[in-house]
Amino acid sequence: MEFSSQLLEKAVDEIAQLPGIGRRSALRLALHLLKQPESHTQRLATALTNFRDNINYCEQCHNLSDAPRCDICSNPARDETLLCVVEDIRDVMAIEATGQFKGYYHVLGGLISPMDGVGPQNLTLDSLISKIESGTIAEVIFALSATMEADTTNFYMFKLLSKFSVRLSTIARGIAVGEELEYTDEVTLARSINTRLPYEKSIRQ
Amino acid sequence: MEFSSQLLEKAVDEIAQLPGIGRRSALRLALHLLKQPESHTQRLATALTNFRDNINYCEQCHNLSDAPRCDICSNPARDETLLCVVEDIRDVMAIEATGQFKGYYHVLGGLISPMDGVGPQNLTLDSLISKIESGTIAEVIFALSATMEADTTNFYMFKLLSKFSVRLSTIARGIAVGEELEYTDEVTLARSINTRLPYEKSIRQ
Repeated sequence: MEFSSQLLEKAVDEIAQLPGIGRRSALRLALHLLKQPESHTQRLATALTNFRDNINYCEQCHNLSDAPRCDICSNPARDETLLCVVEDIRDVMAIEATGQFKGYYHVLGGLISPMDGVGPQNLTLDSLISKIESGTIAEVIFALSATMEADTTNFYMFKLLSKFSVRLSTIARGIAVGEELEYTDEVTLARSINTRLPYEKSIRQ
Repeated sequence: MEFSSQLLEKAVDEIAQLPGIGRRSALRLALHLLKQPESHTQRLATALTNFRDNINYCEQCHNLSDAPRCDICSNPARDETLLCVVEDIRDVMAIEATGQFKGYYHVLGGLISPMDGVGPQNLTLDSLISKIESGTIAEVIFALSATMEADTTNFYMFKLLSKFSVRLSTIARGIAVGEELEYTDEVTLARSINTRLPYEKSIRQ
């Protein structure tokens, strides 16, 4: 694309580096900003730099937090025997939205993915082990996605933690609520047959 | 969505105000920035504010430009008898990319759209008229999209400019190159039959 303005080109170049945004979308976003008051762009820029420069991680669960310890970790009413291991903040938000989990979280900060250069040493596994060593945790729940990287990470954590006397569990994988059997992929269907459970348990919710 | 950090929430709020980006995508973008070095976010923010605060419009064609007059308008080798009216910079870029037009441009800065509160007074029509009054222009080409707003704007300009002794033309609308007749919509097909042209002319290009 040939731009008539260097300033525009620079803005488009930077926006287009964001994931999922091509140069054409970037141009559309830049032209949108141009139609808004200048204060709009100023607010956007300030919010981004403030966020990037001043964000903290909770010292307990490694989730994003403004305070040294996040709201969940500083809530003494939660169940300290349950620890739920998740990939990132989005998973904490998703699980919190269900209202079904009352324990604490541990945010790994990624998944083992050799292709992307992410190894076990890049995750918060040391901190996970010291939490378990402290002795209050009875069950560690692996709540990762159902991808290859997540399976690898689950297996690595299983090996790493099986020497401790804690129960290790993983969230159930199977047919999503509302999904039709005939359109379910074979791997999911096979897994949901193999991990079937007594009917009385399945209606508990 | 319940965020564990105000800084994150503010960033997501601002990003989600951009067109076509929902809160979920905004969160993904914010978390992406977090995985990049701080300088990355700084560069993005600077490029956006620099662009928004310092951008100029060419005094001649009203296209975006860093200089008071854009590269196209300051090129004396172009044909001053031809003026191509377009909606915005993207259309200038698209037409320039074809390499088929050697005249000058006039950027309207929008289309007449009462639904969006855009009337003729919001477009650069006064400047268009004074260009035509200057007397060097022989043909004005309306090169707008094939939408309702574009048709309205075309018709308005036609009424406004028909008192001047310039040729008024509009870019051809019809079946796109590579398109199959049976899948062409009725309106386009009807129009392309009604505006058919002698075969010798159609193979010129």
